[in-house]
Amino acid sequence: MITGKNYIGNQLSALGNKTFKTFNPLLNIENQWIITEASNTEVNQAAELAAQAYKTYSKMSGAKKAKFLRAIAEEIEALGDDLLQVYSSESGLPNGRAMGERGRTLGQLRAFAKHVEEGNWVDASIDTAQPERKPMPKVDLRKMNIALGPVVVFGASNFPFAFSTAGGDTAAALAAGCPVIVKSHPMHAATGEMVSSAIINAAEKTGMPNGVFSNLNSSGIEVGQVLVQHPKVKAVGFTGSIRGGRALFDLAAKRKEPIPVLAEMGSVNPLIILPQALQNRAEALAKTVSGSITLGTGQFCTNPGLIIGLKSDGLTNFINTLAEEIVKVEPSCMLHPNIAGAYESNKANAVAQNGIEVLAGYDADVKPNYAKQVVTTVEGETFLNNPTLHQEVFGPYSLVVQCQNETQLEEIISNLEGQLTGTIISDDNEIGAYTSVVNTLQNRVGRIIFNGLPTGVEVCPSMLHGGPYPASTDSRFTAVGVDSIKRFVRPFSYQDWPNDLLPIELKNENPLEIGRTVNGKLTNNKI
Amino acid sequence: MITGKNYIGNQLSALGNKTFKTFNPLLNIENQWIITEASNTEVNQAAELAAQAYKTYSKMSGAKKAKFLRAIAEEIEALGDDLLQVYSSESGLPNGRAMGERGRTLGQLRAFAKHVEEGNWVDASIDTAQPERKPMPKVDLRKMNIALGPVVVFGASNFPFAFSTAGGDTAAALAAGCPVIVKSHPMHAATGEMVSSAIINAAEKTGMPNGVFSNLNSSGIEVGQVLVQHPKVKAVGFTGSIRGGRALFDLAAKRKEPIPVLAEMGSVNPLIILPQALQNRAEALAKTVSGSITLGTGQFCTNPGLIIGLKSDGLTNFINTLAEEIVKVEPSCMLHPNIAGAYESNKANAVAQNGIEVLAGYDADVKPNYAKQVVTTVEGETFLNNPTLHQEVFGPYSLVVQCQNETQLEEIISNLEGQLTGTIISDDNEIGAYTSVVNTLQNRVGRIIFNGLPTGVEVCPSMLHGGPYPASTDSRFTAVGVDSIKRFVRPFSYQDWPNDLLPIELKNENPLEIGRTVNGKLTNNKI
Repeated sequence: MITGKNYIGNQLSALGNKTFKTFNPLLNIENQWIITEASNTEVNQAAELAAQAYKTYSKMSGAKKAKFLRAIAEEIEALGDDLLQVYSSESGLPNGRAMGERGRTLGQLRAFAKHVEEGNWVDASIDTAQPERKPMPKVDLRKMNIALGPVVVFGASNFPFAFSTAGGDTAAALAAGCPVIVKSHPMHAATGEMVSSAIINAAEKTGMPNGVFSNLNSSGIEVGQVLVQHPKVKAVGFTGSIRGGRALFDLAAKRKEPIPVLAEMGSVNPLIILPQALQNRAEALAKTVSGSITLGTGQFCTNPGLIIGLKSDGLTNFINTLAEEIVKVEPSCMLHPNIAGAYESNKANAVAQNGIEVLAGYDADVKPNYAKQVVTTVEGETFLNNPTLHQEVFGPYSLVVQCQNETQLEEIISNLEGQLTGTIISDDNEIGAYTSVVNTLQNRVGRIIFNGLPTGVEVCPSMLHGGPYPASTDSRFTAVGVDSIKRFVRPFSYQDWPNDLLPIELKNENPLEIGRTVNGKLTNNKI
Repeated sequence: MITGKNYIGNQLSALGNKTFKTFNPLLNIENQWIITEASNTEVNQAAELAAQAYKTYSKMSGAKKAKFLRAIAEEIEALGDDLLQVYSSESGLPNGRAMGERGRTLGQLRAFAKHVEEGNWVDASIDTAQPERKPMPKVDLRKMNIALGPVVVFGASNFPFAFSTAGGDTAAALAAGCPVIVKSHPMHAATGEMVSSAIINAAEKTGMPNGVFSNLNSSGIEVGQVLVQHPKVKAVGFTGSIRGGRALFDLAAKRKEPIPVLAEMGSVNPLIILPQALQNRAEALAKTVSGSITLGTGQFCTNPGLIIGLKSDGLTNFINTLAEEIVKVEPSCMLHPNIAGAYESNKANAVAQNGIEVLAGYDADVKPNYAKQVVTTVEGETFLNNPTLHQEVFGPYSLVVQCQNETQLEEIISNLEGQLTGTIISDDNEIGAYTSVVNTLQNRVGRIIFNGLPTGVEVCPSMLHGGPYPASTDSRFTAVGVDSIKRFVRPFSYQDWPNDLLPIELKNENPLEIGRTVNGKLTNNKI
């Protein structure tokens, strides 16, 4: 069932001579499947096919694209438990997580299906002609979103389903009318092939053009580099490290025709605990935060890696309880030996910084690839002056910063790099006295949370998953939720275009009854 | 009245020791005003002030920002004829054009005032909590657009009002809640100072924070380079040459924190004339096109620099008439000796290419800085193989490409660089047989026009002014119309945020009665 080949459009292909295997971190052994890397020939074939497919696929109705997206969901479901087993064997993530993430992935595909079927996403706008206007007649102008072109999607290591082959980026791009070429994540290439087979089956069953989807294997960076520089590729979606995302961004910016790279990258997701909250419920908070730090072995992009509070008995109490709680959590397996290794070295580097005090860390022996959680603490002043301490330690690691006063707290927040999220823990009404802190935090993050936890990214229209650099390369877009389709579209205007040649969304008759801004007023009436 | 100083916030300032003068191309003499270039100190001051102003200005209500924008329009009007005279003396453009462009600029400011007053532009989206949801409760999420941060605007040489100091980019950024630093165009620095004084007066009268606007002079590129690299600057708007826009884009992409550069650059605006139209009305078309080529001395970004048709008697007739008509037009003055000089050398280079035939050109003597119009023609095959012929010759120059057949026509279109506009001239129903040509053209342009001319960019919500690179650096945004505000905003999510602390646009009560997507449905009701 798993061939290790690439999908160049609907053809399995293995022209290259480099192979690799994926790894089972739980068993600490290589998986059996031999994965063949895509050759440059195959990369070019996939890009050319995608450009060809774009011509017809970008013009397809919302109803047809919806059918395709729903068929993908059905085909993934039809892979059943086999898929979940391959997922776990390539990620070390448990079956429950596999099921949950599959559910989320199917939900995303179906949400986009509904979104494009309804059709409002094209943001149609119509200004009708005024031939009698003086001194110049006014032309008829009609604008709507159209697909940008072939999109390359780089799968994430930590979400083999939801942010990978048929994940959010792919669903958004396909919904927009863009063919997709996935650069499969090397840690879960077999999972990627299975999901790809579902997409290809769905494409064939619903009559999509060949090339609407391709899946390319690669254990290194070269296939990705060639893809991002390919003239037929018009946008890139990426979820992963700052280093990886920035390298792709730089390549794309240097192209003769620069293209957008929508990279969702690192974040330490600061959690600010206000004094009264610390005073009144330090212990309960410490227990909750301990769970959030270790959830999924700390391998979520919204993992709270930085906790900030004002020095007080409450903060001391919080720190002591967190130290007690964090070691009670049973360590769990990381995604891959490389990730476990990076965690160990990043953690060691963080802990070795001047002024860092280790509050507690799991210290019994663990199985290979399992991560020992650690929490540390540091003075505000020390944190401010050491950029190393601002860097993400991907895994179950968190740093508590103890601030001298509110001024220092605000200074620390304003000096943070861009973040996906920022959280304020506050007692009732306490937050009202911290307007300046909240405003400063808002300027550094994409989503602000009141008395909650950053982990758990709800997939809904009002979610913003992104933020100021380096949380993402372009804070003007979200990577989660139906609005993520906006990354892969461009508005397009028709001037004085004959009604019968206009796309259905812009015709006078408005057969889809979508909402349109007509002469400045939103309406779903015909003209 | 004109001091030649910079505005660092509301203070006139001239700390630098480099000065320059602007030029009157009609009289072919330097203007009297001595303009002082901004020093690095002043650039930093302006950026720091803007970052400071952002804290309060970004939080201002739509009503307050609208008052400010309308006050700018009033203050510009109050400058009266003096402003128009300075405009003409720095551009060579006639009084009628000055009045028309001023009207357009005031209209833009007022359109943005209305836009932010109404408030729908924030694209509010609310997903209410479901505490009982299984297996996980659903949090309350609310999303809206917020201001990106301080924006740098580079004024355009060819629109001293509408795309400069208080032009579209400035109006859009201020409407969004972003302070603006204008890098004044050196060719119309005195005009820029007058308009800046109007903005500063308006800011003071309506209680805007100091730093909401600054205006920096510079005859070279250094001030602009420092601005684009300044850490407090969060976005850049630019209108001008490909070389200039790309240089800024490259600088911004290399920053530690890359920022968006929204550059609207070159375009040759291809005009495709279908065979029946050529057969039936070649002469009338040639007369109209001749007027469009020479309008405003060919100094519009939508000037039709490329005309493409299939070889036929009709095309020959068109060419002959165009040759007759183009020389009847009285040459007019270009904006500056440098622009006139560039036109001459670009034209000379284009004309010197192999296979180029000059159809007609104005050949009597003209005054200094006046542009002699030229139309040329070339075989389709020759055009395809010579990239030099694809480049814009900014001025009253146009090239007619004669295609062997429809296949070649389509190949030529598909090989064009990205364009602001593409025009199809067709007889009734003729266009129906050219679907593939139209689709190919659509992929290369931002706006497609039926039986019209690209010149004349209507300012309305349905206008798309932009297009695939190099027409603009990001085809996902428009530079004209109220939607251009989207360039300078980012969506932001509030999770479980207390209702009384939410911005007015997201409160349950919906006091502004704006349209909001509530649990997936658009409504202007309260919750």
